[in-house]
Amino acid sequence: MASALRSRLNVRPAACFRATRSFSTASVRRGPQPFVADEPKAPSVQTAIPGPKNQAAAKELDEVFDIRSLNLLADYSKSVGNYLVDLDGNVFLDVYAQIASIPVGYNNPHLAKAANTPEMIRALIDRPALGNFPSADWSHIVRTGLLKAAPKGLNQVFTALSGSDANETAYKAAFMYRRQQERGGPDVDFSEAEYKSAMINQSPGSPQLSIMSFKSAFHGRLFGSLSTTRSKPIHKLDIPAFDWPQAPFPALKYPLEEHVKENAEEEQRCLQEAERIIKEFHNPVAAVVVEPIQSEGGDNHASPAFFQGLRDITKRNNVLFIVDEVQTGVGATGKFWAHDHWNLQSPPDLVTFSKKAQTAGYYYGNPALRPNKPYRQFNTWMGDPARAILFRAIYEEIESKDLVRNTAITGDYLYGGLESLAKKYPHAIQNLRGKGQGTFIAWDSPNRDEFLVKAKSVGVNIGGSGASAVRLRPMLIFQQHHADILLEKLETLIKA
Amino acid sequence: MASALRSRLNVRPAACFRATRSFSTASVRRGPQPFVADEPKAPSVQTAIPGPKNQAAAKELDEVFDIRSLNLLADYSKSVGNYLVDLDGNVFLDVYAQIASIPVGYNNPHLAKAANTPEMIRALIDRPALGNFPSADWSHIVRTGLLKAAPKGLNQVFTALSGSDANETAYKAAFMYRRQQERGGPDVDFSEAEYKSAMINQSPGSPQLSIMSFKSAFHGRLFGSLSTTRSKPIHKLDIPAFDWPQAPFPALKYPLEEHVKENAEEEQRCLQEAERIIKEFHNPVAAVVVEPIQSEGGDNHASPAFFQGLRDITKRNNVLFIVDEVQTGVGATGKFWAHDHWNLQSPPDLVTFSKKAQTAGYYYGNPALRPNKPYRQFNTWMGDPARAILFRAIYEEIESKDLVRNTAITGDYLYGGLESLAKKYPHAIQNLRGKGQGTFIAWDSPNRDEFLVKAKSVGVNIGGSGASAVRLRPMLIFQQHHADILLEKLETLIKA
Repeated sequence: MASALRSRLNVRPAACFRATRSFSTASVRRGPQPFVADEPKAPSVQTAIPGPKNQAAAKELDEVFDIRSLNLLADYSKSVGNYLVDLDGNVFLDVYAQIASIPVGYNNPHLAKAANTPEMIRALIDRPALGNFPSADWSHIVRTGLLKAAPKGLNQVFTALSGSDANETAYKAAFMYRRQQERGGPDVDFSEAEYKSAMINQSPGSPQLSIMSFKSAFHGRLFGSLSTTRSKPIHKLDIPAFDWPQAPFPALKYPLEEHVKENAEEEQRCLQEAERIIKEFHNPVAAVVVEPIQSEGGDNHASPAFFQGLRDITKRNNVLFIVDEVQTGVGATGKFWAHDHWNLQSPPDLVTFSKKAQTAGYYYGNPALRPNKPYRQFNTWMGDPARAILFRAIYEEIESKDLVRNTAITGDYLYGGLESLAKKYPHAIQNLRGKGQGTFIAWDSPNRDEFLVKAKSVGVNIGGSGASAVRLRPMLIFQQHHADILLEKLETLIKA
Repeated sequence: MASALRSRLNVRPAACFRATRSFSTASVRRGPQPFVADEPKAPSVQTAIPGPKNQAAAKELDEVFDIRSLNLLADYSKSVGNYLVDLDGNVFLDVYAQIASIPVGYNNPHLAKAANTPEMIRALIDRPALGNFPSADWSHIVRTGLLKAAPKGLNQVFTALSGSDANETAYKAAFMYRRQQERGGPDVDFSEAEYKSAMINQSPGSPQLSIMSFKSAFHGRLFGSLSTTRSKPIHKLDIPAFDWPQAPFPALKYPLEEHVKENAEEEQRCLQEAERIIKEFHNPVAAVVVEPIQSEGGDNHASPAFFQGLRDITKRNNVLFIVDEVQTGVGATGKFWAHDHWNLQSPPDLVTFSKKAQTAGYYYGNPALRPNKPYRQFNTWMGDPARAILFRAIYEEIESKDLVRNTAITGDYLYGGLESLAKKYPHAIQNLRGKGQGTFIAWDSPNRDEFLVKAKSVGVNIGGSGASAVRLRPMLIFQQHHADILLEKLETLIKA
């Protein structure tokens, strides 16, 4: 199947790499050289899932830790590259990758080297309060890592600890910016009424402003971020939330190229509604937050035209535009940032990241988004230098191995294979989506939850999103030979 | 001054150590042996503060990072034990310790060893989504570290990334527990109205419940935690907040032993008001959160009787009792947890931690505080095993060197010295507080901000809290000889 697919798609394996790399004739014949030399050749499952050792260990863990969301207990000492090994020695091809968070493979040697340095040890044991006592080399760490990866037009970063933290601090920046505008600029002091009312959580000091998000969005689970999350009731039930608005997110028909006109109309409808809400919602909207591809919410796509339109709406209504790249960022869509696909005229105001970056935070460009006084955007740790050092090593690995390009090409190849499967088994693979979006691919499955469980029995670790989507989130070192294995296993599962 | 103080206080240095440790006559004569053999003997300041290298580096850092809260740029490679070294080679006795977060000294060898293991490297580079794919040894890491340190009566832990994160997840646990009670137990499903309304941030799905905190409290800076923070307007201005109530925190007179009756009355007044609010506030109170000593808010103390009374109130009103030990926890008050001072009849429902633990989360005991379904208290990382491994090493170091006991005894010694200074310079040291609370000591200074800046010029790194307090937050390895240096430097500053 593999070579047939390659020939049909006319993908030249050597195209996965920079022109400066050379390949033996043999390697061209059998596809690009693997990034990970010592990976297993294929998954192997020796026991029922979960196996006996997993069951015993889970029981022990349950005494101290909630295991109801447990998938498996992993043996990370044996896991390598794209392969995750469980406690019973079962070897899984991992296309879920710690909920889309492992970028360059388990036990990546370059990362291991970065983790085994005096610099890293100091970052771990002498953890600074970054806002007060940064290390002398913090500027260097930021410049050679986080800022090298910064989205076009954004040259500043505020570091945080998780995706929720990144989004909430971005929201705070947006609220402070908005109120500063309303007051008349950074030099106008707070009023006495603001000082007093803020202390009792009342306006004007604690203003009745809002962040607009989209239906089915996921932006995190702390109180501010959860107020913008609209993915599933189980994420939100019983938790107080802010009275903030949601706009409809386009419900597109797939494949996109067969529904161009109606999808464009649907996007237009959603844009109009978004602008209406911004103009009319009773708690004024300070910022719009949106994911380039709604991930937890079910892998919902929209076109560059939609996002360009949304950018225009935020501009003309003086509302900030926050792009949440927590799941889409760092290469998975075949661009380093998914919003690079949009060709925006002006960059987003704030771009948040976490997951594959292994650290978190937000990028911005407008200096006015630094609050007008110190200690307004502040906390004890403000991120973690150890994780920022790790991100630098990840970035180096992505650059030196050209992994974003690999993901784009492998993604096209994989998508082609899935298209063939979808034609052969239209009931099993519905609404295939993610064409041209690297390996950020999903489809709807009629028995999704069962499908995911069964996938483990054939050695594939795979995740879901939304109500019925199977979502692929392989690492950036996922190559054609992994795609071939995945396609073969998927067909086995569908046939069964 | 040092020996005079020791003799006045009748502190026997050897009492700092477990009875099983033996000391040479010489070491008894000159005080306990230092925990850190290679520490500087004293601070040394060579340049104006900030020195030329600090100034140049700060300018460079400012291009990419907000430096308005910068104290100094540190050279952690040269810092050791209680001494922080800046980029110009100035050596500071550090009694601020990264905003109360470094427990066992810079470049602690035991921590360095723990950071330099294959286990740590894997935890860094193969970071798991803990709720789905914990490592096989996660249970062991939790049992041998976090749970060994667990407060009495609490045998479960939920791990998080920061103090704000810890508090907010504790609040979420409290809200879910409360709504579950109201529904009639864990087996009663959510109603259709709850499912629907949660998705649009409205009750009953997003209930109008509240967390009650205290005036001057600090519990973090994300949206839920910030709604319970009442320390300073600058922390809260321009950020939307929940309509949650605050109770008065006792405004005690110091020294406590000279104002017993009026302080008891003040505490009684506050307790009555707290109970009234719990009974009457329009958004029903699901939990009360309180710090054992209000830290950011100005080092405000209350008696064990106050906290016992508060615990009783929460019990009889069916409200959860959350103790925020983010700043007080892990030994600084001379007990491992500050609430150990209270002798509660029943333990707190939830105890949150961060800072000196170098990881974060909340402890609990009641199994019903695990939500009734999976994925309700969940996020991608749910903490960081690398930091949990570090906490285990910190705990081992505290135990093996008996550092909580050291802190209790050194704290008494230091407090005695400060009492003498306060008698000598009553204008400079007002409202001295923290007697019997380890080294968790503070006083009010008429020119506090200036005092803190000047302290650096004599080689002491020291922090403030509230409007006018100087707060001491030395590490747990702070010993009598450090206290002697600190007292001498303080007197120098006051005289100047």
